[in-house]
Amino acid sequence: MNRRLLDALQGKNQGRPPLWLMRQAGRYLPEYRALRGRYSFLEMCHTPELVAEVTLLPFRHFAFDAAIVFSDILTIPEALGVGLRFEEQAGPIIERPLKTAADIHALPHVEIGEKLNYLAQGIKLLKPTLQVPLLGFCGAPFTIASYMIEGKSSRDLHTTKRWMLQDPDSFHKLLDKLTNDVIASLAMQIEAGVDAVQLFDSWANVLTPAHFSRFSLPYIKKIIGAIQHKVPVIVFSRGPFAKLIAAAQPTAISIDWNQEMGAMRQAIPNTIALQGNLDPDCLFAPLPRIREEVNTLLTAMRGDPGFIFNLGHGILPQTPLESVHALLECVHA
Amino acid sequence: MNRRLLDALQGKNQGRPPLWLMRQAGRYLPEYRALRGRYSFLEMCHTPELVAEVTLLPFRHFAFDAAIVFSDILTIPEALGVGLRFEEQAGPIIERPLKTAADIHALPHVEIGEKLNYLAQGIKLLKPTLQVPLLGFCGAPFTIASYMIEGKSSRDLHTTKRWMLQDPDSFHKLLDKLTNDVIASLAMQIEAGVDAVQLFDSWANVLTPAHFSRFSLPYIKKIIGAIQHKVPVIVFSRGPFAKLIAAAQPTAISIDWNQEMGAMRQAIPNTIALQGNLDPDCLFAPLPRIREEVNTLLTAMRGDPGFIFNLGHGILPQTPLESVHALLECVHA
Repeated sequence: MNRRLLDALQGKNQGRPPLWLMRQAGRYLPEYRALRGRYSFLEMCHTPELVAEVTLLPFRHFAFDAAIVFSDILTIPEALGVGLRFEEQAGPIIERPLKTAADIHALPHVEIGEKLNYLAQGIKLLKPTLQVPLLGFCGAPFTIASYMIEGKSSRDLHTTKRWMLQDPDSFHKLLDKLTNDVIASLAMQIEAGVDAVQLFDSWANVLTPAHFSRFSLPYIKKIIGAIQHKVPVIVFSRGPFAKLIAAAQPTAISIDWNQEMGAMRQAIPNTIALQGNLDPDCLFAPLPRIREEVNTLLTAMRGDPGFIFNLGHGILPQTPLESVHALLECVHA
Repeated sequence: MNRRLLDALQGKNQGRPPLWLMRQAGRYLPEYRALRGRYSFLEMCHTPELVAEVTLLPFRHFAFDAAIVFSDILTIPEALGVGLRFEEQAGPIIERPLKTAADIHALPHVEIGEKLNYLAQGIKLLKPTLQVPLLGFCGAPFTIASYMIEGKSSRDLHTTKRWMLQDPDSFHKLLDKLTNDVIASLAMQIEAGVDAVQLFDSWANVLTPAHFSRFSLPYIKKIIGAIQHKVPVIVFSRGPFAKLIAAAQPTAISIDWNQEMGAMRQAIPNTIALQGNLDPDCLFAPLPRIREEVNTLLTAMRGDPGFIFNLGHGILPQTPLESVHALLECVHA
């Protein structure tokens, strides 16, 4: 078993940094696109054999140091019955977005572990075949809540933010409920065999620091408290909130590309590992420029025993495979 | 003449902070919406009498401490002949976006001061009627370039960023040209009578710190160098780049709502004024909550002689007028 990632999460990695990419089992892979021609995105999420197969696809091309189980942060809203479908251009659509406090109260209590059993089954199929650690994941409560309220991708999340400011009590109730569901999903994934988990607070960047501290961080902290004694917890967040997240003492913080990683290392206690943060658009540059960007990041974090190489966000659908090869070569060199 | 803004820009304001709002002459005003029913957005930009009238509209309701001339950052691309129109939902559309380096080379040299003469005429009509300072403005070169390449609003500016990384030489040529045009526009606005100017780098938040330093900041610095001996220069930028901008020594930096203003004041030398940074969505909260948010910001910056109260971005179209009244009352109290 390749232990680089687990060592880095403990701040004890002595060699080159471990490397994996958010959405590494995604649309930039020809095999993934071929499967998507045969199955819908949700069919792929719901079928344990496909969960296992898709998770493993990137390893046909690349020697990543971790796998991340193929799933989606919207499996929890789906389990809560708000209606989820994926459209080719528009992305995820929630058919019955939350509109009133009554909609929040009406959300059913569901046994997330049972509803998402397909994910547990996929993990169990997958885990024995892996020579690298397997990551589970969930959306962070604020990000899941924002999808359930907006109903679709939104740049500014105005509807979510206005609800949050106009009726913070019901918004907190939603966050509370989702926190319990996230904990249940992560516990199920851990039970099924994942070695670490990542929380995605992908839309936190719309918030002020004060609102992040009030409407996102306490829930992240509760999840860390419930999970971290079992496996390491990585928190990914867009926005300049790493120092605030550090106070919740996750195992690692994953940084977007707006921040300079060396400066983040200065600002974050080195009891917390740091993951990131190459701009995914860099993988569209010519290969010499990619090597330059990767080496700049490697140099900034050289010798850091708690550094995990990753992108600042998910790898983009049209990313050339040869760019990813160049990235791996640099990190391995 | 109300000198609060000019005093704060010099770091010498002794009373309450000056207050103005980005897009204060905009769609949240009923009189603005009525005019937009009679004229297109571009007709309003192109007609000196309407420029003057629209700039003054907010003062029918609110005692702001500065006016900002009604115009648009896309008047420069329009003057360069790329075709500009505004669609009700989609926002600005560039009819002939730049697609190749040859398109950049083919951009005409135009006398911006002459092409944008309507703006100078509007300023001249307007200025004698004002008891507050008048701000001129332009987009920053990176932000204007991104519109000219994307052709429409875009969340991630992938096309722009990939051009920048794949062919930095032609991208720098575009930025160079736009820098000269921005300087010409600002010089014309100053000649016509504005008391200070603001540069809007509204899309810089898609960049890494290193790319911001390479593809935006040098051009901002050149503009500051050409303009600041005439009037104060405020630089607005989305993204966590205030410390980098401080190195270019603008008169003031306008901060978005992702940052905590007190922390920014610690990080930025107090030779530079700070403007911002209430989240525009806060103005959709109930009035007591608005007062709380405004007072939190006022408290954080209390006694700061270089603080200018503003939003973290433009005021949003549906903002209730009574919210703006509540904001003014708090700042005036």
